[in-house]
Amino acid sequence: LVIKCKAAVAWEPKKPLVIEEIEVTPPQANEVRIKIVATSVCHTDLYHLLEDEAGFPTVLGHEGAGIVESVGPGVTEFQPGDKVIPLFISQCRECRFCKSPKTNQSGRDPQMMASADSRFTCKGKKVLQFVGTSTFSEYTVVNQIAVAKIDPTAPLDKVCLLGCGICTGYGAAVNTAKVEPGSTCAVFGLGAVGLAAVMGCKAAGAKRIFAVDINPDKFEKAKVFGATDFVNPKDHDKPISQVLAEMTNGGVDYSLECIGKVDIMRSALESCIPSWGVSVIVGWTDLEDFSARPVQLIAGRTWKGSLFGGFKSKDGVPQMVKDYLDKKVKVDEFITHNMTLDQVNDAIELMKQSKCIRTVLSVSPQ
Amino acid sequence: LVIKCKAAVAWEPKKPLVIEEIEVTPPQANEVRIKIVATSVCHTDLYHLLEDEAGFPTVLGHEGAGIVESVGPGVTEFQPGDKVIPLFISQCRECRFCKSPKTNQSGRDPQMMASADSRFTCKGKKVLQFVGTSTFSEYTVVNQIAVAKIDPTAPLDKVCLLGCGICTGYGAAVNTAKVEPGSTCAVFGLGAVGLAAVMGCKAAGAKRIFAVDINPDKFEKAKVFGATDFVNPKDHDKPISQVLAEMTNGGVDYSLECIGKVDIMRSALESCIPSWGVSVIVGWTDLEDFSARPVQLIAGRTWKGSLFGGFKSKDGVPQMVKDYLDKKVKVDEFITHNMTLDQVNDAIELMKQSKCIRTVLSVSPQ
Ligand SMILES: NC(=O)c1ccc[n+]([C@@H]2O[C@H](COP(=O)([O-])OP(=O)(O)OC[C@H]3O[C@@H](n4cnc5c(N)ncnc54)[C@H](O)[C@@H]3O)[C@@H](O)[C@H]2O)c1
Ligand SMILES: NC(=O)c1ccc[n+]([C@@H]2O[C@H](COP(=O)([O-])OP(=O)(O)OC[C@H]3O[C@@H](n4cnc5c(N)ncnc54)[C@H](O)[C@@H]3O)[C@@H](O)[C@H]2O)c1
Ligand SMILES: [Zn+2]
Ligand SMILES: [Zn+2]
Ligand SMILES: [Zn+2]
Ligand SMILES: [Zn+2]
Repeated sequence: LVIKCKAAVAWEPKKPLVIEEIEVTPPQANEVRIKIVATSVCHTDLYHLLEDEAGFPTVLGHEGAGIVESVGPGVTEFQPGDKVIPLFISQCRECRFCKSPKTNQSGRDPQMMASADSRFTCKGKKVLQFVGTSTFSEYTVVNQIAVAKIDPTAPLDKVCLLGCGICTGYGAAVNTAKVEPGSTCAVFGLGAVGLAAVMGCKAAGAKRIFAVDINPDKFEKAKVFGATDFVNPKDHDKPISQVLAEMTNGGVDYSLECIGKVDIMRSALESCIPSWGVSVIVGWTDLEDFSARPVQLIAGRTWKGSLFGGFKSKDGVPQMVKDYLDKKVKVDEFITHNMTLDQVNDAIELMKQSKCIRTVLSVSPQ
Repeated sequence: LVIKCKAAVAWEPKKPLVIEEIEVTPPQANEVRIKIVATSVCHTDLYHLLEDEAGFPTVLGHEGAGIVESVGPGVTEFQPGDKVIPLFISQCRECRFCKSPKTNQSGRDPQMMASADSRFTCKGKKVLQFVGTSTFSEYTVVNQIAVAKIDPTAPLDKVCLLGCGICTGYGAAVNTAKVEPGSTCAVFGLGAVGLAAVMGCKAAGAKRIFAVDINPDKFEKAKVFGATDFVNPKDHDKPISQVLAEMTNGGVDYSLECIGKVDIMRSALESCIPSWGVSVIVGWTDLEDFSARPVQLIAGRTWKGSLFGGFKSKDGVPQMVKDYLDKKVKVDEFITHNMTLDQVNDAIELMKQSKCIRTVLSVSPQ
């Protein structure tokens, strides 16, 4: 049966979300309908709302957790009542990409970061599902290749953060940069993604972790996750790459851009030591090209990018949930605010102003 | 004693070289004076002559081989009569870079591709040594950390090519890209560097090797080195990355830019398959930035650069000479023309017009 429920609809770019009643169709073949219990807001939601022109109307939200309500034909892996996290990248386990240990990007997920097909309507209009998830809704429908079943004891109002930001940053350090013990790292941008990258560097055994942000309020949190040095670009006249080079005898071994600005991507690359420095682009923007001089790579640096921290989504998320329950990764420390779905525009405003790490919105009772 | 000898002097940018008598001082501490027997012309010589403004007057040439004439104080590794190849990147074996297996770029060689100090004068003026080598001269002086002693049976008029182009291309595939058996590769530019990259891909077990050049005369040679497919961008209306994606079900596993143009660097990156493609910048230019969209890396590609094919110079060159003598790597096949040092401007002209692979100039009798 069609479910009528509450969702925050983004009718058009750059406008506040509107809480509406939407219709959610039953799951089709291989699909799972999920009651979302909690969701948080990630900068990529803001990016779509504020910077993209296409892909509206839509329901944003891709960092959520919930409970399976019903399953479509052909679904055997999930049952109503299962605790799950919807995934913005899929893992079909069948394509040549899923079968390769070199990537987490399934061939069945070609629309990365774009709007997928939708099971939503509102006021007679089709409403898109942002990156196939749409967790700013009481119910959503997701293909089973993009749903992770998690430990039934997991608190959904915490582990919802493992649906994007924490896995993204942590994995970018551990899986993509492959930070080595004893190394020196720099993380640009101390939102949840950047702080998780700091946590990843620390877990990988980094000796020194530079936390870089223009908002010095973030430094205290960065310390909690393992940062050892704190750099505010506003405190320096010199390019930050030069500041870091001086503090590290030539540059850091690994740098991670967790902001989404092309000039910082370059700066992060330039902050790496020639010869072996590895820089990873994690921040998202599709408005401009990044650039650098050829010699900056020829000198021995490597430039990579990371989507969802390089985690194969269905394998990685349940494992990270387990690691959280086993106290091997932090999650609670990322949550600075708790609100309800009705307050989603306030949560967005907090992030715009760099005044939160993560705001968890409660969507339905657990 | 000061040696007076013949050299091709580049008095100013964009002008023909002039054969002059120059003075070469005796080797100072840790230096080796070398009689150059043979040299070839590499595109990096042309780049300096035609595109750089600073670093003149100079003696170009960095792909040469010769015989030790005398050694300075503190040199114990070399003796007069030793066959050697001067190196444009050094290996001091003592710095943290030389001690790391991750790089071939010594901390004692900071001026990469720039002019080093000089032991030359001509007509009362100091003449610089291009990248510390200057093989377009009957004699040159090089620090011992930038000289490789090679097998005494090696033919210098062949192995001079191992001083740059062949090691550069071969190593870019084998050491930097780390091409895997069964993979698909594309090499952009089929000069000696690109052809050596093709040879490296083949040696690493690549299954398919696309050879890309706007000069189709190069394809026959590329076949000799192992290329399996040949693409002339002029034959296609579509971007070459799209052509290659269609021919390979999504893109090649490895691409190598061996031309030195920033738009081709981008095209080479875009020709790689998302998820795990690795693109290596080998071609040299310092006039412009390369660029791409962040999503092209976030989709899973890796962008690297390679200097001298990632070979630690003093270790790698004698080994490559040995591999040539053992018929494991080809060298003779790169030589399309033989001339004398007096004809260096003709050799430069041939390369400008893409009409040679390598021209070997005989400099002194062996
Ligand atoms: N690649 C992926 O899979 C993926 C996944 C999730 C998020 N992202 C991207 O990661 C980025 C970070 O997301 P988030 O949720 O942590 O964002 P956030 O807004 O919470 O954090 C961004 C931080 O960057 C800081 N900052 C802004 N401009 C800066 C500058 N010029 N110099 C230094 N610091 C600066 C802000 O003060 C803030 O602390 C976004 O671009 C987001 O789209 C990518
Ligand atoms: N990174 C290093 O350590 C290193 C060392 C040596 C040389 N290099 C650089 O490698 C590059 C190649 O050197 P080389 O000696 O083989 O040069 P080359 O001039 O012999 O070969 C260049 C080839 O590129 C082809 N070409 C030119 N424009 C093209 C285009 N738009 N599309 C396709 N093909 C095109 C030409 O036809 C030619 O076959 C140069 O940039 C050189 O400076 C780098
Ligand atoms: Zn996100
Ligand atoms: Zn798949
Ligand atoms: Zn060269
Ligand atoms: Zn060294």
